[in-house]
Amino acid sequence: MADAVPQRGRPRDAARDRALLEATLAVLAESGYGGLTTAAVAARAGVSTATLYRRWSSKEDLVIAAVAAYAGDLGAQPDTGTLDGDLRDLLRDKAVALTGRSGQLIRTLIGEAAHNDALAEALTAALMTPVRERVDVIVERAVARGEIPPLKDRDLVGDLVIGPVVSMFTLAPQPPHEVAEATARAAADRLLPFVLRAVGGKAKA
Amino acid sequence: MADAVPQRGRPRDAARDRALLEATLAVLAESGYGGLTTAAVAARAGVSTATLYRRWSSKEDLVIAAVAAYAGDLGAQPDTGTLDGDLRDLLRDKAVALTGRSGQLIRTLIGEAAHNDALAEALTAALMTPVRERVDVIVERAVARGEIPPLKDRDLVGDLVIGPVVSMFTLAPQPPHEVAEATARAAADRLLPFVLRAVGGKAKA
Repeated sequence: MADAVPQRGRPRDAARDRALLEATLAVLAESGYGGLTTAAVAARAGVSTATLYRRWSSKEDLVIAAVAAYAGDLGAQPDTGTLDGDLRDLLRDKAVALTGRSGQLIRTLIGEAAHNDALAEALTAALMTPVRERVDVIVERAVARGEIPPLKDRDLVGDLVIGPVVSMFTLAPQPPHEVAEATARAAADRLLPFVLRAVGGKAKA
Repeated sequence: MADAVPQRGRPRDAARDRALLEATLAVLAESGYGGLTTAAVAARAGVSTATLYRRWSSKEDLVIAAVAAYAGDLGAQPDTGTLDGDLRDLLRDKAVALTGRSGQLIRTLIGEAAHNDALAEALTAALMTPVRERVDVIVERAVARGEIPPLKDRDLVGDLVIGPVVSMFTLAPQPPHEVAEATARAAADRLLPFVLRAVGGKAKA
């Protein structure tokens, strides 16, 4: 039964984990949550379903792990030295993440999470909590630099900053693939002055 | 074949239309878009599927009509006389609409619209366009009263105002039913000062 023992940490297994999580994202994008089967994911990753089930015990666990891995890939927030620069980077990143293939994935999962509180919790932890923390760091740095006064209700700033791009791209038809990223960045740049004012800052001339 | 001729406009038919659209919303909330069948909607409304199909030729048409009717029920924006009051009403309305049963409906439809551009267009027209127009009227009145200077990129203000409540309630697990409305209103009231600053206004003391 040695084969049934999880052997995480070996390089070959880490690569297999990664292949399975990438296959999960690909199948989700194509078929939606309802259409995803662990058999389809395993086949796409070139492994048996037994191999998949040794790692994740259910479809829900697998999807949550894939989203968490995907969100981890989004990278950290560089310190640009100004509130304006920090917020510009963040808004562009999030606008791009909400369009194209990743945007479609997130929207698909919102629909499923509407009926599945465990998935909603996991998605909030994987996607929203890191953004809220990232915004909190940006605001803290701006206050420390004396760019803005300390904010009341600082826990809301994350939703305030990313809300407009969420509203703009979550329900609307997606922009055509070729222009999605440029459309997203342009929208982010136009939103920036409003967001700066909201947190007590001033837009650059 | 007289029975097959659409007979809109007669009171009995208007009531039947309404019953069918309400049944559509109820079935959507229970079963999601994928689980909704025209047979289930017709049964719930107490009519035959033939009666349903004389009005709407597909499941998609039926759902779009139900969402449009639902959005129409949300009511108009009263003029409170101040930017602060107008935005407070709007934020509370939208926060409440995004929680509870209507919030679950909207989130379910976002998931379906991720794979269905026709539905995404219809939902944008039914749900987002009226909010953007309502915000535009609020901003226009505030500028006319001299409360705020004219805004650049005014077309973005709708997403700026409702974005934070969308971000806050679209992905997270729903608050318990008994406190959902109070939770939504409290969040709206805390967001208001940020939104006021974003559009160039000042929060009341």
